[in-house]
Amino acid sequence: MKARVHIMLKNGVLDPQGEAIRHALGTLGFSGVNGVRQGKVIELELADGTTEATVKEMCEKLLANTVIESYTIEMS
Amino acid sequence: MKARVHIMLKNGVLDPQGEAIRHALGTLGFSGVNGVRQGKVIELELADGTTEATVKEMCEKLLANTVIESYTIEMS
Repeated sequence: MKARVHIMLKNGVLDPQGEAIRHALGTLGFSGVNGVRQGKVIELELADGTTEATVKEMCEKLLANTVIESYTIEMS
Repeated sequence: MKARVHIMLKNGVLDPQGEAIRHALGTLGFSGVNGVRQGKVIELELADGTTEATVKEMCEKLLANTVIESYTIEMS
């Protein structure tokens, strides 16, 4: 089974990388880009029977810095 | 409107960051993690009426390195 974890900076946390992308898109002539946020996506290939609770524990312990980042989990 | 772009390394391209996460999860006692791939997610806040074709052009020109990365676009 697979799990996909999205990790984004929380709202209000400055995202310089996203800001750099927004600026670069403007330079390339793309108008109407009002905001960009960059985050991470982690795809996990897991043994069958692994629960979402286990993946949540992985996020809390390792994958996300919960002080500044929020995460969402999709199991499939 | 919003667009979300997922950028992952293509299959066959070595992903040392994913491998490091896999190893770290094992060290923390999580068993049954058979593979990890790390990618990027970019959330774009766009002016109304921006088409998916425009976002595709952004990916080709700036967001993804199409030699080693593949991308998927979700409009919402």
